[in-house]
Amino acid sequence: MIRIGVIGYGYWGPNLVRNCFEAKEAQVACVSDLREDRLALLNNRYPTVKTTRDFRELIEDPSIDAVAIATPVSTHYDLALKALQEGKHVLVEKPLASDTTQVQHLMDVAQKRNLVLMVDHTFVYTGSVRKIRELVETGGLGEIYYYDSVRVNLGLFQHDVNVLWDLAVHDLSIMDYVLPFRPCAVSATGLNHVPGGTENIAYLTLFFEGNLIAHIHANWLAPVKLRRTLIGASRKMIVYDDLDQAEKIKVYDKGITLNNHQNPEKLYQMLVGYRTGDMLAPQIDGTEALRREIDHFLHCIRQHEEPITGGSAGLRVVEILQAASQSMAQRGRPVELRLTTLEATA
Amino acid sequence: MIRIGVIGYGYWGPNLVRNCFEAKEAQVACVSDLREDRLALLNNRYPTVKTTRDFRELIEDPSIDAVAIATPVSTHYDLALKALQEGKHVLVEKPLASDTTQVQHLMDVAQKRNLVLMVDHTFVYTGSVRKIRELVETGGLGEIYYYDSVRVNLGLFQHDVNVLWDLAVHDLSIMDYVLPFRPCAVSATGLNHVPGGTENIAYLTLFFEGNLIAHIHANWLAPVKLRRTLIGASRKMIVYDDLDQAEKIKVYDKGITLNNHQNPEKLYQMLVGYRTGDMLAPQIDGTEALRREIDHFLHCIRQHEEPITGGSAGLRVVEILQAASQSMAQRGRPVELRLTTLEATA
Amino acid sequence: MIRIGVIGYGYWGPNLVRNCFEAKEAQVACVSDLREDRLALLNNRYPTVKTTRDFRELIEDPSIDAVAIATPVSTHYDLALKALQEGKHVLVEKPLASDTTQVQHLMDVAQKRNLVLMVDHTFVYTGSVRKIRELVETGGLGEIYYYDSVRVNLGLFQHDVNVLWDLAVHDLSIMDYVLPFRPCAVSATGLNHVPGGTENIAYLTLFFEGNLIAHIHANWLAPVKLRRTLIGASRKMIVYDDLDQAEKIKVYDKGITLNNHQNPEKLYQMLVGYRTGDMLAPQIDGTEALRREIDHFLHCIRQHEEPITGGSAGLRVVEILQAASQSMAQRGRPVELRLTTLEATA
Amino acid sequence: MIRIGVIGYGYWGPNLVRNCFEAKEAQVACVSDLREDRLALLNNRYPTVKTTRDFRELIEDPSIDAVAIATPVSTHYDLALKALQEGKHVLVEKPLASDTTQVQHLMDVAQKRNLVLMVDHTFVYTGSVRKIRELVETGGLGEIYYYDSVRVNLGLFQHDVNVLWDLAVHDLSIMDYVLPFRPCAVSATGLNHVPGGTENIAYLTLFFEGNLIAHIHANWLAPVKLRRTLIGASRKMIVYDDLDQAEKIKVYDKGITLNNHQNPEKLYQMLVGYRTGDMLAPQIDGTEALRREIDHFLHCIRQHEEPITGGSAGLRVVEILQAASQSMAQRGRPVELRLTTLEATA
Repeated sequence: MIRIGVIGYGYWGPNLVRNCFEAKEAQVACVSDLREDRLALLNNRYPTVKTTRDFRELIEDPSIDAVAIATPVSTHYDLALKALQEGKHVLVEKPLASDTTQVQHLMDVAQKRNLVLMVDHTFVYTGSVRKIRELVETGGLGEIYYYDSVRVNLGLFQHDVNVLWDLAVHDLSIMDYVLPFRPCAVSATGLNHVPGGTENIAYLTLFFEGNLIAHIHANWLAPVKLRRTLIGASRKMIVYDDLDQAEKIKVYDKGITLNNHQNPEKLYQMLVGYRTGDMLAPQIDGTEALRREIDHFLHCIRQHEEPITGGSAGLRVVEILQAASQSMAQRGRPVELRLTTLEATA
Repeated sequence: MIRIGVIGYGYWGPNLVRNCFEAKEAQVACVSDLREDRLALLNNRYPTVKTTRDFRELIEDPSIDAVAIATPVSTHYDLALKALQEGKHVLVEKPLASDTTQVQHLMDVAQKRNLVLMVDHTFVYTGSVRKIRELVETGGLGEIYYYDSVRVNLGLFQHDVNVLWDLAVHDLSIMDYVLPFRPCAVSATGLNHVPGGTENIAYLTLFFEGNLIAHIHANWLAPVKLRRTLIGASRKMIVYDDLDQAEKIKVYDKGITLNNHQNPEKLYQMLVGYRTGDMLAPQIDGTEALRREIDHFLHCIRQHEEPITGGSAGLRVVEILQAASQSMAQRGRPVELRLTTLEATA
Repeated sequence: MIRIGVIGYGYWGPNLVRNCFEAKEAQVACVSDLREDRLALLNNRYPTVKTTRDFRELIEDPSIDAVAIATPVSTHYDLALKALQEGKHVLVEKPLASDTTQVQHLMDVAQKRNLVLMVDHTFVYTGSVRKIRELVETGGLGEIYYYDSVRVNLGLFQHDVNVLWDLAVHDLSIMDYVLPFRPCAVSATGLNHVPGGTENIAYLTLFFEGNLIAHIHANWLAPVKLRRTLIGASRKMIVYDDLDQAEKIKVYDKGITLNNHQNPEKLYQMLVGYRTGDMLAPQIDGTEALRREIDHFLHCIRQHEEPITGGSAGLRVVEILQAASQSMAQRGRPVELRLTTLEATA
Repeated sequence: MIRIGVIGYGYWGPNLVRNCFEAKEAQVACVSDLREDRLALLNNRYPTVKTTRDFRELIEDPSIDAVAIATPVSTHYDLALKALQEGKHVLVEKPLASDTTQVQHLMDVAQKRNLVLMVDHTFVYTGSVRKIRELVETGGLGEIYYYDSVRVNLGLFQHDVNVLWDLAVHDLSIMDYVLPFRPCAVSATGLNHVPGGTENIAYLTLFFEGNLIAHIHANWLAPVKLRRTLIGASRKMIVYDDLDQAEKIKVYDKGITLNNHQNPEKLYQMLVGYRTGDMLAPQIDGTEALRREIDHFLHCIRQHEEPITGGSAGLRVVEILQAASQSMAQRGRPVELRLTTLEATA
């Protein structure tokens, strides 16, 4: 039985607690939050769980094996560092930390102490995203041309990060999991409409070495909720609509055909043909992502394994977010991704 | 009765011919196309219309008052110039020409000869776009925050222009008509997936002086057809879905509220409130846009008026497209719009 | 504080327990179910609640004030009767009992002992249905012409009642609440596809004295889930789609106009005009229906009031279901509703 | 070249004329209509076609081989009969005539004179319906359980027939084509809301000998347009939505499983299992139905063949409509179909 402490019982914390509660090999030992009313709510639902307003009490409790952190982004680094230093395995809500230096330090500490460091890239554990990865790997999509995502709704405005760090982080973590390539540069644009706030609408383009481009539209100020991703490829194309209860993934047997005519005088437009066939909506495993993720966290702790969404995945995503913020401040001026380049040349 | 000649009977030409045919004060005098089979098709439907493979025959015909041009973009300038030089009023399919120099020259010639020069910014003449303009002007939207459009489908790949010049041009012409501000700079990204082709997927951000940002996603290689625009504003927000047969325009009484707390220690997120109310889908006038547009063209000819979508509108749109192509070649580096700046300083 | 016992912890029971748990003036004292595994599940979530496999233990517990029954329909009467006889207020899942004689007996016992008897017509307590009633009463719909509902999905097949008793009961309870008239006869058709089973697909028409007709399609064997009601009226029309997360109620300013021409030779079709205007989707109160319903139950107990969905409402719905089953056995032969007739003649 | 005369240039006539015009082996020789303005409209579009206000002129023209009739239902019989008597092949808009006696007489005359008599059951010629028939025949649907169709919209109110004769006739013609069984009885309900009018809302159940039931909801007074058919079967299920431009047909790998337990004490509900798998939307041939239908008419004339939608199909559909009108007048009392019974006993 792995004993887990949860820091933060705001928006996401209750989901963590509920899923830890229902996991067979875990026990929720303690929950901390600064707000008494949040703790009272927890006590009502789970009278047997210990609560505290001081996270140190939780982190320093020697009976606790692992800590799950669901607090504002700006506090991730400090809390995760202290928990690692106390010898706890750590699961941090996305994004892992506020910059790549922080992430790299957390990774170092975790590695030296042989602890699991995992980031809560929730979507990676959904049946939909796992199906997309399966389709990319074996589904005959052909060459991937683009990845385009729209993730917009009204609120919740964050106060310590812009909308890319809050919403686009989901898309970046999905891409990190399903795409076989890493981006080499980004261009981002956006705007803030709240005095003293951060960008609440943003557009992010990711450039890759080859024939691939990616783009994300993230928006806290949209009249409708949209969660739709288009994946274009040479043989098949995917539409992933996370709000479609019945058919989240649709695979279209559609595309263009290119004819290699010898005669250069032939019109170019003759060379592009359009191909359209059946559409298949595969059945998706509906297991709650967080349930699968908690199980994976517990598994990695027991087996001393690196999680699918470990420090490296967290680092790659944070690097993109950092570069995007830089580009956005300069109206889309492209910014190169150095870690990727280093990886490629290593 | 105004006698009209139509050059080009490909994709758009038949719509022009049909609408000119049904307009009470116009007469389709002649249609030219390089392809015999296209002319045969026309002859079958309209046995009384004269046809020719040589556009000069049409342009030089003294009995013809006006010429409508529906040919590839790269030919617009030459054809429009010759027609103006022959004293014809001219309606050119969008975009008006290939660069701002060409547009300015056409405008000069038209002005000197007192002829109508009009660009076929079709959407400006739809009931939906006119309703949006009405809502912007008098509908209590409040301050406009963003304009976001997605215009994607499979095909038709153009051979002489990229996807921005083919699809985003519609959104630019709509914005030019409904927004009370002009963009001052652009950042664009995109990619071409066809050897020897132009960008078939592109993203374009438009920057404005104030609190407004605009963005367009244009794509010839999408598995589904989407035509959706979100307009965010301080009091109400609009969703314009051109493919929704029943409710093209939805006006949401939604937004955020900002509380001016005196206490600076209060959390920022407390300051942003979310407001949600009724949604209204106003009835839209379903008159075919091209029908209304042809009537406006005829009206401007008779009354010697400048069309709503005259040379100036065409020039503004072409300048943005030119700047976007430049930016796209440099991975999103921002490019300023000079004409707008000149206008503003003039 | 009103102490509540819940009988049955299958599909609906957990919702009852959760909402009673969160109601301020109620306390879940005991839950009974025949299945150990269901009680174990409850114990895991609510360690403080007493459980038993013997419902008598619960019913006879003098510390319990009220009993909520969420068991198969065929057991409703016996359980409710025993609970009333033990002096408990009773809330019974829909439908109230298996026939009108049972319902009338329950009503008699409750009245004599001055106890609240309420049926769980859940939809009556949703924001959507309350909005519809408001629109019918004051929204200018005009004369109501028809009420048409489709309620289909795959499963769950019930073993003791047919699909009308399981699904159409929702529509009948909604109609009972929102329509100003009572039906006078029914015609029903349906079929059973499972050996030994009950009708899993059924169609029910309700006739009214005046210009109104109602129809329900209920189906356990549909490939898609649909929950859509059309309400036609002389001035406005309503579409109520319970699966539309954003816009459950749409009010269409649409209809026909009838011209009273003097000239009888005029063609009839000239007399019918079509009128179409704006569509309004009013904001809907999203409070969970069961939460509001439990509060109403508690209120009626404290104030000795008759619930909105008391015995009379339950009786009217059960009478229709009984008549529908009779009609269905005779391929749609119409069956009159006697209670309604008695009411009318009384 | 087959020379065709078209009687009636109202709502449907223009589609007939256009498709005959574009058919290679046909020639539109003459069009008749009582209204001058309709003929003027035709003359404007097709200046070469002869027009007349007197249908006799058309029918008696010896140069005309075939006549297409697109007039109100009540005139079908007289016009078709006269045309056949003049030796013309005849295509009649649906439904073929006003009662079975009329249809049988038309069939007799056509047979004696060796002429083609065809009814315009348009949907039979759509790619969607042909795909459904293919799926029923070879697509592994298993045993068909039900056919459920909703066909509603606002208008057009007909003056000489009720809504079943106008809208449900489409569904009946589709069922006649795709289902391997014939109905044996009907029950119908409906209501008229216009003084002096016919039923504008109607529900029709069709009973079959075996495990199959069918139902149609037809409505001229609906706030939204719906065209959706559900086909339930033992192995797969179909949703056919004629308004879905991209995916008109969806085939769901869904259903129930029945376990043949030996133990009779096992609960019934244990016996029903739910099976859910992928959904496939097959590509649909988008050829205009009327184009394919006209070609079939011409083919039958040349080859002296019985059309797919000949007199027999027309007769079966009219018999159902007649029985439905009888049942509707008696609030759903079931009415047997005699022709079907005769067929079965023959």
